[in-house]
Amino acid sequence: MTSLLLRNVRPLGAAAVDVLVEGDRIAAIGPSLPAPASTVIENGHNALLLPGLIEGHTHLDKTVWGGPWYRNEVGPERMDRINNERAWRTTAQHDAATRARGLARDYLANGTTRLRTHVDIDPDIGLRHIHALLQIRAEFAGLIDMQIVAFPQSGVVRCPGVADLMDTALTEGADVIGGIDPCAIDRDPVCQLDLLFNLAQHHAKPIDIHLHEPGEMGAFSLDLILERTEALGLHGQVVISHGFCLGTIDTRARDALLARMAKLDMRIATTAPASTPVPSLAACRAADVTIFGGNDGIRDTWTPYARPDMLDRAMHIGLRNALRRDDELIWALDCVTDAAARGCGFAEYGLAPGCRADLVLMQAETLTEAIVAGSPRTLVVASGRVVARDNALLTEF
Amino acid sequence: MTSLLLRNVRPLGAAAVDVLVEGDRIAAIGPSLPAPASTVIENGHNALLLPGLIEGHTHLDKTVWGGPWYRNEVGPERMDRINNERAWRTTAQHDAATRARGLARDYLANGTTRLRTHVDIDPDIGLRHIHALLQIRAEFAGLIDMQIVAFPQSGVVRCPGVADLMDTALTEGADVIGGIDPCAIDRDPVCQLDLLFNLAQHHAKPIDIHLHEPGEMGAFSLDLILERTEALGLHGQVVISHGFCLGTIDTRARDALLARMAKLDMRIATTAPASTPVPSLAACRAADVTIFGGNDGIRDTWTPYARPDMLDRAMHIGLRNALRRDDELIWALDCVTDAAARGCGFAEYGLAPGCRADLVLMQAETLTEAIVAGSPRTLVVASGRVVARDNALLTEF
Repeated sequence: MTSLLLRNVRPLGAAAVDVLVEGDRIAAIGPSLPAPASTVIENGHNALLLPGLIEGHTHLDKTVWGGPWYRNEVGPERMDRINNERAWRTTAQHDAATRARGLARDYLANGTTRLRTHVDIDPDIGLRHIHALLQIRAEFAGLIDMQIVAFPQSGVVRCPGVADLMDTALTEGADVIGGIDPCAIDRDPVCQLDLLFNLAQHHAKPIDIHLHEPGEMGAFSLDLILERTEALGLHGQVVISHGFCLGTIDTRARDALLARMAKLDMRIATTAPASTPVPSLAACRAADVTIFGGNDGIRDTWTPYARPDMLDRAMHIGLRNALRRDDELIWALDCVTDAAARGCGFAEYGLAPGCRADLVLMQAETLTEAIVAGSPRTLVVASGRVVARDNALLTEF
Repeated sequence: MTSLLLRNVRPLGAAAVDVLVEGDRIAAIGPSLPAPASTVIENGHNALLLPGLIEGHTHLDKTVWGGPWYRNEVGPERMDRINNERAWRTTAQHDAATRARGLARDYLANGTTRLRTHVDIDPDIGLRHIHALLQIRAEFAGLIDMQIVAFPQSGVVRCPGVADLMDTALTEGADVIGGIDPCAIDRDPVCQLDLLFNLAQHHAKPIDIHLHEPGEMGAFSLDLILERTEALGLHGQVVISHGFCLGTIDTRARDALLARMAKLDMRIATTAPASTPVPSLAACRAADVTIFGGNDGIRDTWTPYARPDMLDRAMHIGLRNALRRDDELIWALDCVTDAAARGCGFAEYGLAPGCRADLVLMQAETLTEAIVAGSPRTLVVASGRVVARDNALLTEF
């Protein structure tokens, strides 16, 4: 078994130590560790050491990353974006595997070693994107742990056949049951949620529902989700993505919902868009609700923005939540590290002996500087293997 | 006179042409221009060509850029930040000139060739920061055009002597009369505004007032400012920085204020923070009110965020205003180019013969890609002189 010894690195900004990696695990952390025979030694140059970063909510199958610029001319409503994307796919020969691979490579180069991707299922594409992403997941095994969410972007109830397609996707290897706006998109919340929760029970897999619905409509949908989570005993099995309603309803109603979520260990994935009210990080933390971060789509037919860099996303989460103080800004880093591991259920995560050796080095004085400065990742280690230097991958996939 | 010929560049994304620079001016733009004798020729490699970028609102004197990390432990209110900064300055030996110089260098390396900086005047520091920035302005002459705003950060009315210091600063070379929250900070709006408008009349210089006040309070202050602007005939002479109230009051009241602003050619500087409602770009454009962009402070005792990169700021403006479509996202670029030149009154600006030769090259397919991708500036020309390549300055200052 080969060993890797990182000398002179500062775990989460603490005093400099050495980190010994054996196989795909962290074997030891401490000052002046002895180097076993045939150990590759890396001088960390007093760099900041972070655990591999985690993308908690993205859409690899939608991206046009690495391709020609997509000229966005979409209408103003969410349903415009859904229909625009489906129309574009039929003419654009979109190759989800190729684009997803390119984006995943750049995620890895920037230090992301685990991610959750929502993958479209609709009557046009059926399981084509699911199959593409199952292939990509296999290609990146041992580099990026990928969770695939079977995501009914166009709805479940209003799209005959989609529930069956989701069932098949879960049988074929999708990890999580997706959902979207039970009122606003599917227009029959009870029917949609019963379909999703039946799938969860049948496959014994977790749920992650896009809830864009604002205000009281979203709060109503969330209430229905909480009701089913409790009735079926799905403690720790449900994620609400976006949850914009928690950013718009009055704070007493919000805090009541957060208290119920905490009791059921229901988690929130936030992409912290600048233009939409979002669940407050401070309120979620005060209520003991796990909240973690994601980019949402990166450069696709929905949006021209975002980058496959979870420190960049942490910065946006900090900006959206007006986190200025150092002791608050680190909450944003938690969203793309520990909280995301907890929220998505990624095991063996962290900077301790026994954890998977997913390591990121960068020159930064503090964790907060790492969030805001966008400095290069000088070294990325995935499952014990050096895969990137200075944001460039070392090997081809 | 030396000449510079940029071959094969795409002005604002148009078809590739050549650009001939003679002295500090653009002499000609067109296909296959002949090279005069002793011309330096640069191959543009089909790069996108932008005019020099403009920073419309920053605080060079406050930054800790390039120094040790500042650990932010400030309280939650604006007055906490003001008092924290003043207390810090007395102990931290803050050298405004050194830090401002470092930040200005990075602005230039990233393609910014004009900027407006608000410079603190208060009873503790008197004119120390003004003198530092007058020195920096002189050092960067011919590279970055700097406008200095005499800025009463801690208030005018509540700080005896500050109005006189502002008067001296304007005599010594400050370009613009600053102001801040006539109600919330100075607590005597009529007295503050009368002092500021008297200075404007006496010195025949423009005004730029920080108006953070939200809702009806901000609308009241804005009303008082409009009243004085009209009464004194200061058409085109007044900028409202931030103007957060225009993001919170109801849209009918907002549009009434915008209509009055348009009539007086009053401009708005937006920093588009993600956590605060802001004046809508779409509404301002519809009302024919010039709105331009700025970073506000960059890494100082107020905020850990921001970068001396106006394309990065354009991206934040786009995100905050939910600009997804290509034909809307370019409004964000306007905020850091033409609108900022109009808003601040920078002359001889643009990509046309006769304009000052401030030019930025980068690899980007479209203007919108330039906004979101954060690609390096492959070449920066300031007043006809090549000053930076790949975001690194060529010469020391």
